[in-house]
Amino acid sequence: MQTHTYTRNATLVGRAKRVVPGGVYGHQSAARLPDGFPQFFARGEGSRVWDVDGNEYIDYMCAFGPIVLGHRHEAVERAVDEQRRAGACFNGPTEYWVHLAELLVEITPHADWAWFAKNGTDATTFAVMLARAHTGKKQLLRARGAYHGSAPWCTPRSAGVTPEDQANQIFYTYNDLDSVRQAVAQAGDDLAAIIVSPFRHDAWFDQEEVDPAFARGVRELCDETGAVLILDDVRAGFRIDLGGSWVPIGVAPDVSAYSKAIANGYPLAAVVGREELRAAAEEVFMTGSFWFAGAEMAAAVATIQTLRATNAIAHMKRIGQMLRDGLDAQARAHGLRIRQTGPVQIPFLTFVSDQHFERSFTFSSEAAKRGVYLHPWHNWFLSAAHTEEDVAATLEITDIAFQVVRQVHGEG
Amino acid sequence: MQTHTYTRNATLVGRAKRVVPGGVYGHQSAARLPDGFPQFFARGEGSRVWDVDGNEYIDYMCAFGPIVLGHRHEAVERAVDEQRRAGACFNGPTEYWVHLAELLVEITPHADWAWFAKNGTDATTFAVMLARAHTGKKQLLRARGAYHGSAPWCTPRSAGVTPEDQANQIFYTYNDLDSVRQAVAQAGDDLAAIIVSPFRHDAWFDQEEVDPAFARGVRELCDETGAVLILDDVRAGFRIDLGGSWVPIGVAPDVSAYSKAIANGYPLAAVVGREELRAAAEEVFMTGSFWFAGAEMAAAVATIQTLRATNAIAHMKRIGQMLRDGLDAQARAHGLRIRQTGPVQIPFLTFVSDQHFERSFTFSSEAAKRGVYLHPWHNWFLSAAHTEEDVAATLEITDIAFQVVRQVHGEG
Repeated sequence: MQTHTYTRNATLVGRAKRVVPGGVYGHQSAARLPDGFPQFFARGEGSRVWDVDGNEYIDYMCAFGPIVLGHRHEAVERAVDEQRRAGACFNGPTEYWVHLAELLVEITPHADWAWFAKNGTDATTFAVMLARAHTGKKQLLRARGAYHGSAPWCTPRSAGVTPEDQANQIFYTYNDLDSVRQAVAQAGDDLAAIIVSPFRHDAWFDQEEVDPAFARGVRELCDETGAVLILDDVRAGFRIDLGGSWVPIGVAPDVSAYSKAIANGYPLAAVVGREELRAAAEEVFMTGSFWFAGAEMAAAVATIQTLRATNAIAHMKRIGQMLRDGLDAQARAHGLRIRQTGPVQIPFLTFVSDQHFERSFTFSSEAAKRGVYLHPWHNWFLSAAHTEEDVAATLEITDIAFQVVRQVHGEG
Repeated sequence: MQTHTYTRNATLVGRAKRVVPGGVYGHQSAARLPDGFPQFFARGEGSRVWDVDGNEYIDYMCAFGPIVLGHRHEAVERAVDEQRRAGACFNGPTEYWVHLAELLVEITPHADWAWFAKNGTDATTFAVMLARAHTGKKQLLRARGAYHGSAPWCTPRSAGVTPEDQANQIFYTYNDLDSVRQAVAQAGDDLAAIIVSPFRHDAWFDQEEVDPAFARGVRELCDETGAVLILDDVRAGFRIDLGGSWVPIGVAPDVSAYSKAIANGYPLAAVVGREELRAAAEEVFMTGSFWFAGAEMAAAVATIQTLRATNAIAHMKRIGQMLRDGLDAQARAHGLRIRQTGPVQIPFLTFVSDQHFERSFTFSSEAAKRGVYLHPWHNWFLSAAHTEEDVAATLEITDIAFQVVRQVHGEG
């Protein structure tokens, strides 16, 4: 098995460093990834991506979530092509504005209206603003370490952020209802909202499924206080349940924020919410130059209809379980202790004996060099295009990667 | 001449109101526009747009700025098609990330690097954050009434905004250097940045060209204090000068924020800046799920190259002057006093005798019903696709619209 070479990638990385701060910034920077991870990509098709050197990968990141049906899904591309023939953007939305809002309201038990933007951060920001407008209160409760976007109020790094930008926030611990109760008490009569992700998916940590009792408790605290319960479904949305990621545990938020997978890779974000919050949503002023464009909304309608018609989430669960079982068996066979956490369709793997992700770096590096793209410190994503054959091909390569981990770092 | 009918539009407006707060929100809501302005659009081509009822308009809004080469410009569409065949988004950028950054640095005298996002608000927000990161100071000076986006720190409406969100801001008056000096004094040793638009283009007001002495004075104040001069070129960028909208007056900002016209309608924003600010730009963490997508960047490269190769700005100025001269002559002939303000390629018209834009509403309504889309209270935009024939056809219709204004509101 031949491993990859990265000549063209290295040239582009050098050129990028001259004209872009850091070369590539943000979550898609490869600067904190080991050898074998390319920075620049050329194309994708189904479950596969190719980098600028023509190296092929089975893609378990799916653009960090957006690609939920596979790259270049036919129905989505057809919908986008049709709208693109009409034009990029106009002085108002196209009729897909209405089609998509109606579809989101139809599939979401707790939603009476929908609202659109471009970034996931736009959606979480709007959700927080509308909660403050609705309640007339200021305090926002967030889980310590959770990622809700990268605007001044929520970016995880402090550079350029003032204390005032992150004022009016109280932190709780995910899945610890007592810590939420304490935060609610601290907020006193100034509690606007509790924002929560459907499960714990903080980078650099094992994922943690939500405790249904925690979710019910948070819902009750919001009911008691009049606070708005915001589900940040940006990362998990459309992979757990089409009605929202807490439908399986029977807990309904007041508003949900979506982005990433909503349009299979095309730039779109959405907030959906209850009737009671409509007036506040009308008052908050957020808008953007490209928020009314039709092609992305046509893509979202096609994506959601395809997910529903093909029962795609069940397929992702089945394939995800195969991958998890296969990796578990391989790790055991190599005498390596791993943890696989989170939903099988949004998987993550860490090594129990790692101090600083050293085995994860070796493992993901060896896999990438041979054509399997698995991230060492951020959760992965499956798509509906992933097949049993993909998993089988993946496991051939991860078997070698585990073997190298064992050779380099020893048993454990 | 037959005026338009709006049956399909009315149906969609009714459906939208049920499932979207306000039906359509933000700057593209037609709720504050008079009869004749459709809410929903079907397609565009060159200088023309068609609404969902098939009514055709000569488009003087260009999607509120993004369409700078005309709808569906061939070179841009070809570039987008090519990248779209590769896929929507991946685990890293495409090589257009590098091509576009190199091109922006090449055409912008004050730029050593470029940074990309999706919304104009992303760009202005990043510029402010990087100024604070660079200076270690907090105060931001803004012109009273200026629009720099719709995040909590800058949205023009108060709903959902806390006092802390808009802390650390001091206001000056556009073109009033003394007011900037006072604001600088008020900031004391905590001045991070002065943000300024290339000319005054606040909605509901006549536009005001920048006084070069004001611009030079602001530049000097930044030089003296170490504050970062941010040019918010989101609205005007790529219509005044390809090197930035203050190139003609010879004043160089430290950073510029772009969006709207940068990719002829495709969703993209950019910040460009000086070498001295690169380290701060590397520290600030902002990112987005769709910020690395290739098609929009390919569109931007094609847009900028076409603007340059065709000398498109000179063309827009020539056509804009024809329109301005024609409207002036018509208004005089009808005994109506108007003001036309701002650059001719980003024009605006108000009626001197209006108390509450009543003549503007009549004028724009009568024009829209007959096929000319002119906004009553927001500046307009020309594109490179507008022709002498478009202006001639426009003036035939505005002549009738002025006549109706005269009939309804009388002389003056």
